[in-house]
Order: sequence, then C-alpha cells, then structure tokens
Amino acid sequence: MTQAAPVIETNREDNGTPTKAVDWENPRVAAILSAAAKCFARKGFSATTLAEIGKELGLRKSIVHYYFASKAALIHEVQSYTYNKYLARVKEAIASDSSGNRAVNALVSLWDAIQNNKTGTGLNIEVWSAARRDSELKRRASGLHRDAQQIIADSVAEALKAHGHDLARKDVVATLILAVLNGLSVTEYLEDDERKAREAYDLFIKLLTGSQPGSNGQPSS
Amino acid sequence: MTQAAPVIETNREDNGTPTKAVDWENPRVAAILSAAAKCFARKGFSATTLAEIGKELGLRKSIVHYYFASKAALIHEVQSYTYNKYLARVKEAIASDSSGNRAVNALVSLWDAIQNNKTGTGLNIEVWSAARRDSELKRRASGLHRDAQQIIADSVAEALKAHGHDLARKDVVATLILAVLNGLSVTEYLEDDERKAREAYDLFIKLLTGSQPGSNGQPSS
Repeated sequence: MTQAAPVIETNREDNGTPTKAVDWENPRVAAILSAAAKCFARKGFSATTLAEIGKELGLRKSIVHYYFASKAALIHEVQSYTYNKYLARVKEAIASDSSGNRAVNALVSLWDAIQNNKTGTGLNIEVWSAARRDSELKRRASGLHRDAQQIIADSVAEALKAHGHDLARKDVVATLILAVLNGLSVTEYLEDDERKAREAYDLFIKLLTGSQPGSNGQPSS
Repeated sequence: MTQAAPVIETNREDNGTPTKAVDWENPRVAAILSAAAKCFARKGFSATTLAEIGKELGLRKSIVHYYFASKAALIHEVQSYTYNKYLARVKEAIASDSSGNRAVNALVSLWDAIQNNKTGTGLNIEVWSAARRDSELKRRASGLHRDAQQIIADSVAEALKAHGHDLARKDVVATLILAVLNGLSVTEYLEDDERKAREAYDLFIKLLTGSQPGSNGQPSS
C-alpha cells in the first residue's frame, strides 16, 4: 500500500503492526479522516467516492488524493483513526475516575464512549463486512480488536480484580466485555432501541460486578 | 418487492411481517437459497450475481430468475431462510434435552448451532452492513433479531428461572444472550480464534448460571 502523505511510523512490539502511519496531528488530515468516517458509516465503502469526501469539506478530490493515494489507503487509515480515538476516550474516562466502584464506572464509561460515537458502530459493521474481501483490512481490524481487549484487560478487568472479583483470567473477561459491547451495538442499531440495549448492559454489569450502576451512588448513564 | 415464485404467506401477529413468503419446501428453491447463502457470505451481496448462484447448482440464470424476481428479493429470502434454519436447530436442541442443568445445556446448544453455521455468521455481518442502505432488509433483520430473542427468552431464560436464577426480566436476559452470541461470533471471525471465543462464552455461562459446562457432568462442546 503506498501513501502520498508524510508518515510517522509508530513501532509496535506486539505484532509489528503500525496503527499510525499518517500524521493525525495535521488538521487537514484529521478533517479528511473525520469526514470519511461519516461518509463510510452512512453509505458504506463501495458507495462512497473520494470526491464526495472532499466535497464535505469543500476540498477538491486532488487534495484528498494528495494525502491518501487510494480509497483503500483511506479506509485503512479511517479505521485506525476512529478506533484509536474511541480507545483514547475510554482510557481518559477510566483514568479520571477516583470514586467508589471503579470497575462499574469503567464499564459505564465503555458504554458511554460507544453512545457518543455512533459513527464508530456504523464503521465497525462496515469494516467487519469488507474485511472478508480485504485481507489487509482484516489484519488491521484484528489488531485493533486485540488492542481494545488489552485496554479493557488493563483497566476494567484489573479493577474487578482489585475489588475481589477474581472470576477468571483478565484476557477472558476482556474478550467477553468487548463482545458484549459489540453485540449490544448491533442490537441497538438493528432495533433502534437504546433503552433495551442499556438494560441488557446493566444486567451484564450486575453479573460481572455484583452491583448495578445507579444502585451505589453512581450515575446510571 | 415482486416475487415470481408461488408464495405462502405466514401471518405474524407481532408486527405483521411475513418471514416466509417463498415455498421453502420446494427442493429447488431450498437449493438456490442454500447456494445463495454461501455465495453471499463469501463474497458479499454486491459482488455476487444471480448467474454465479445458478452456476453453483448447474442452473441457468433464468431459472434463478423464475423463483426470485431480483437479487434484492433473493437477499431478503436468504436472510429469513438461513436465520429460521438456525432458530429451528436451536429449538430442536433445547427441546431434546432432558438432562441435569437445562439452562447450561441450552446455552451450549446456542453456541454449537452457531459453530455449525459459519455461513450464518458471514451472512449476518453482510446483512448488518447492507441494512443501512436497504430499509426492507433492516426491517426484516430487526424482526428476525426479535424472533431469536423470543426463542431464547422462552427456552433459556425460562430454564434459568426454573433453576432459581431469577436475575432479571426474561427479555433482558435474552437480549444479553443474543448480543453475546453475536459479539463472540465477530470475535471469532476477526481473530480466527475459536478457543478464545469459547472461553469467553464459558465465562458468560458461569456468570449467568453459576455453573460451567463440563463442571457438572455436561459435555463441554
């Protein structure tokens, strides 16, 4: 895959996959990635053109091309960018919490981060679908999925352990938590019923921690 | 949506959606639907043609057209057909069980039915993705999703209650169970790791029932 833009390689120790190849700090790059995420989540990869993404920002197609050599390159970058923004928000929410039941709060933060990022849900579904036809996309999606599990393992599963809920291996707990978040995102998207999905998530929190958000002085949303 | 094939309408009371409009008992119709499910799950809706589906069965495209007026009609029918076959398998597995911990066994059956139907996972992901661009597909996907929840509520959640695990409303339990199944299907598909997904599912069973498959004389797969 070739890319026209200046690249910053971030070396990764786990599997050697750089998740950050394009300069996300460049405001124009960030604007293109955000606009592309919206277009892709709304219409899907195949129905979206680079020209349309440019149009959202009042940019000519050639400018988009300057930063991203192909639609495939842009898709891969949008995926990493959106997922990493989500993960950063999750880390921040978890780190800033100093109150009572840290595990419950962290689980609520994971949920809230998804609720504030509906584009992310649409994009995830598009990535899962397209990954069957694009091995590079699947490789990246798989890496990002594992990154998310790792962050959840380091935060939520760790907090559960600290509270004496030593149910299982942290990686297994993290795998289950991410699956519940993904599965309930699909529920909410298919049924257009945020309350139903949230009730199921609250039950999951109760099963996992023994306490429910809202029942111990925590905000329930 | 027009359909060339003889139709059997099944009236539904909940939302008036007929899930069975084409004669699934017709061996040729069933063969086309099965072949289409495989093609769609492998390559996606847009990259698959009616001619290719016919080719899988040694049928001319015109024969496929005789039964399904359009690719859209075929997609909608494949979705209902595959999902209903899955639900029938689940119901059968649950009904035939007369042994010890019925709730645990039913949960294991739900998992096994997905493992024996990888085409179903690929097709689900394709449906979730395409549903954003096809409101009829979304309406059907939403209905089938609720059907699955209902079956789970009537079987597993009922069994949990019978065993004294009256954790929450049955519909909430069923919503969570289906979300876990969907979410872990995605995990397994993205990471190509059946064992990892299964370990997380076993943890979920333990959280929900207090016992683990295999730990009470039940088979673990």
